[in-house]
Amino acid sequence: MDLEYKKEIEQELKKFFSNKKRKTRKISNELFDSILRLEEYTLRGGKRIRPVLIIVSYLGFGGKNLKEIIKFASSIEMLQSFFLIHDDFMDGHDLRRNGPTIHAGYKTKYGKKTSDNLAIDVGDICISYAVQPILDCKFDNNKKINALKEFFSIIEKTCYGQLLDLIPGTKDVNEEFVRKIYEYKTAEYTIAGPLKLGAILAEANSQEIKKLEKIGIKLGLAFQIKDDILGVFGNEKELGKPIGSDLIEGKKTLLIVKANNRFINKKIGKKLRPEEIKRIRELIIKSGSLKYSEDLVKKLISNIKKDINLLGIKAKQKEFLLNLSDYIGKREK
Amino acid sequence: MDLEYKKEIEQELKKFFSNKKRKTRKISNELFDSILRLEEYTLRGGKRIRPVLIIVSYLGFGGKNLKEIIKFASSIEMLQSFFLIHDDFMDGHDLRRNGPTIHAGYKTKYGKKTSDNLAIDVGDICISYAVQPILDCKFDNNKKINALKEFFSIIEKTCYGQLLDLIPGTKDVNEEFVRKIYEYKTAEYTIAGPLKLGAILAEANSQEIKKLEKIGIKLGLAFQIKDDILGVFGNEKELGKPIGSDLIEGKKTLLIVKANNRFINKKIGKKLRPEEIKRIRELIIKSGSLKYSEDLVKKLISNIKKDINLLGIKAKQKEFLLNLSDYIGKREK
Repeated sequence: MDLEYKKEIEQELKKFFSNKKRKTRKISNELFDSILRLEEYTLRGGKRIRPVLIIVSYLGFGGKNLKEIIKFASSIEMLQSFFLIHDDFMDGHDLRRNGPTIHAGYKTKYGKKTSDNLAIDVGDICISYAVQPILDCKFDNNKKINALKEFFSIIEKTCYGQLLDLIPGTKDVNEEFVRKIYEYKTAEYTIAGPLKLGAILAEANSQEIKKLEKIGIKLGLAFQIKDDILGVFGNEKELGKPIGSDLIEGKKTLLIVKANNRFINKKIGKKLRPEEIKRIRELIIKSGSLKYSEDLVKKLISNIKKDINLLGIKAKQKEFLLNLSDYIGKREK
Repeated sequence: MDLEYKKEIEQELKKFFSNKKRKTRKISNELFDSILRLEEYTLRGGKRIRPVLIIVSYLGFGGKNLKEIIKFASSIEMLQSFFLIHDDFMDGHDLRRNGPTIHAGYKTKYGKKTSDNLAIDVGDICISYAVQPILDCKFDNNKKINALKEFFSIIEKTCYGQLLDLIPGTKDVNEEFVRKIYEYKTAEYTIAGPLKLGAILAEANSQEIKKLEKIGIKLGLAFQIKDDILGVFGNEKELGKPIGSDLIEGKKTLLIVKANNRFINKKIGKKLRPEEIKRIRELIIKSGSLKYSEDLVKKLISNIKKDINLLGIKAKQKEFLLNLSDYIGKREK
C-alpha cells in the first residue's frame, strides 16, 4: 500500500535535517557524523503510516492547513526514531529496515560500549528533534498545547508498554496481559495517538476523539498481532529484519502465549538453531495458536470497519481508513 | 548552601509521583515498582539548584505566581533524572547520591542486560514526566510554548555535549574543545537554561535574557571545573560518588588536558589502582594544572559577579545569584 503524502513528509524531514546538519557541522565533525547517521536511519525506509494518519485525521475532520499539518506530522517520524534506536539497543538488533541499526553502525568505528552509549544519546537527541517542528509550526498555541499533551501521553504509554515487555518471563502471562502490552507499546503510538493528534488539531469534538481512540487501539492490536505472525512466518527480505528474532528474544507474543507449549516455553528466549525455529513454527500451527491469531485479526478488522463507518469523518478519509484496515489485515510485510 | 524553595519543589515532586503511583499500580505491579524506584531516585538527594534558579529568575524579573512557578520548576528535576539515569548507564556507575543507580538497583532482581534495558526505559519515561507539569501549569499557552522551545533547546544541547564527551580520545583535545563540551553538556541545563526559563515566564526583555545566558554559561563552566577538581581531589562520602571515576572513565576534563602528561594520558580510561590515582593526583598538581583550574574558577566567578551586578534583576534575587556564585567557587561537595 503506497501512502499519499509519504513524499511530502520525507521532504519535510530532509529540510529539517539539512538545517541541523548545517548547525552541527560548525560544532564538531563527530557530532555532524552522528546527525548524518540519524538522518539516513530516519529516511531509510518505513511506511510513514504514523504521520499519514495524523494528516488523514486532520483533513477528515475539516482541517485546512495542509502545509502546516505536514510539518507537524513529520515530528512523529522523529519520535519513531527515538523509540526504534533505543529498542534496537535493548533487543541487540543489528538490522532494521534492511540496514544497520545506529549502535551497530558505530561498531565499525568504536568499541561496543561506546557504540551503545552513542546510540542511546542519538536516540535522546531525537526527542528534542521530534518536538521542535510541533513548537515551530503555525497552528495556534492553544492547539499546540493540546496536541503536545497527547504527544507526551503517547510517549508515556509507549514507555510503559516497553517496560511491561522487558520484564522477563512468559509463564504467568495470559492473553489479557499480552493485549495490554500491545495496547500500550504499539497501538497508542502507531494508530490511536496519530489519529487523535490530527483530530485535536482539526478541533474535532471529544466524542469523535473517543471513537478514534477505540478504533486506533483495535487497529493497533490487529497490526501488532499481524506483525507477530510475520515475525515468525514471514519473509526476512521483505520485512527487512531477521525472522524468528521474537522467539530468540523471548517476546511475550499472543502466538506464544496461546500455543502454551512446554517445548516452546523451554526454548524461547534462547539462541535457536534453524531446525528449532522450524519445530516451534509447527507447534504454533498444531496448537491452533496461529489460526486463533489470524481469526482474531479478521474479527478485529471487521469490527473496526463497522466503527469507521460510524465516524463523523469526510468520505475520502473514511475510505482511506477502511482501505488501511483491510491492508493491515492482509499485509505480507 | 541550603536553598530556599527546596522543600516546596520536593513537595511538588511527591504530589506528582503520588498521582503516577496511583495510576501505574492499576496497570501492573512491575510498572508500579519501577515508578517507586524512579521516585526514590529523584527525591533521594541533590541540591535542586536547577529548579531554584528557575524560580529565582522568575521572581527577580517580576513574576508573581509562586505556586505555578514551583510546579513548572519541578519539571527540570525530572529532566535531571532523565539525563542522570542514562548517564549512569553510559558510565557504568552503580552509585549516585549515596544510593544505587537505577540500572544497579534492578540487578538484585534481574540479569545485567534486562537491568540496563529497564534503566534506559525508565529514563525515557522521565521525558514525558518532565514535560507534563509544564503543559499542565496555569501560565498562558503563549508563555508555555516559548518556555518549551527553551526546554527542548536545553535537551538538544545537553545531548550534543554528551555526544562530544562520549567520543573516545583525549589526545587531540585542547582547552577550547573541553570548554565547548562543558558549555553544551553542563552549563546549559544546569545554569543558563534554568535562568532563561524563569526569565521567559516573567516576560523579561530579550537583552536581559541574553545577559543571563552569558552569565549562566560562565557559571556553569565554573561549576563543572570545580566538579572535576572535587571528582579527583574531593571527599567520596560528601560527594556521594567514587573519587577518581572520571580518570577511570577517561573523561576529557580540563585538569587532564592541561596536565598534558604522558603517564596520565597512558593510564586514563583504564582500571586504576589506588596508588596510580595518587600518582595522577600528584602529577596534576606538579604540572600546574590544578592551580590553573582553580585560578580559572576564581577568575570566572569574579567576572560573573560583575555581570550579575549589571543585570536588571530585583535586589533579593541579585543577592542570591552573587551568593550562589561564591558558593560554586568554594563548594566542597
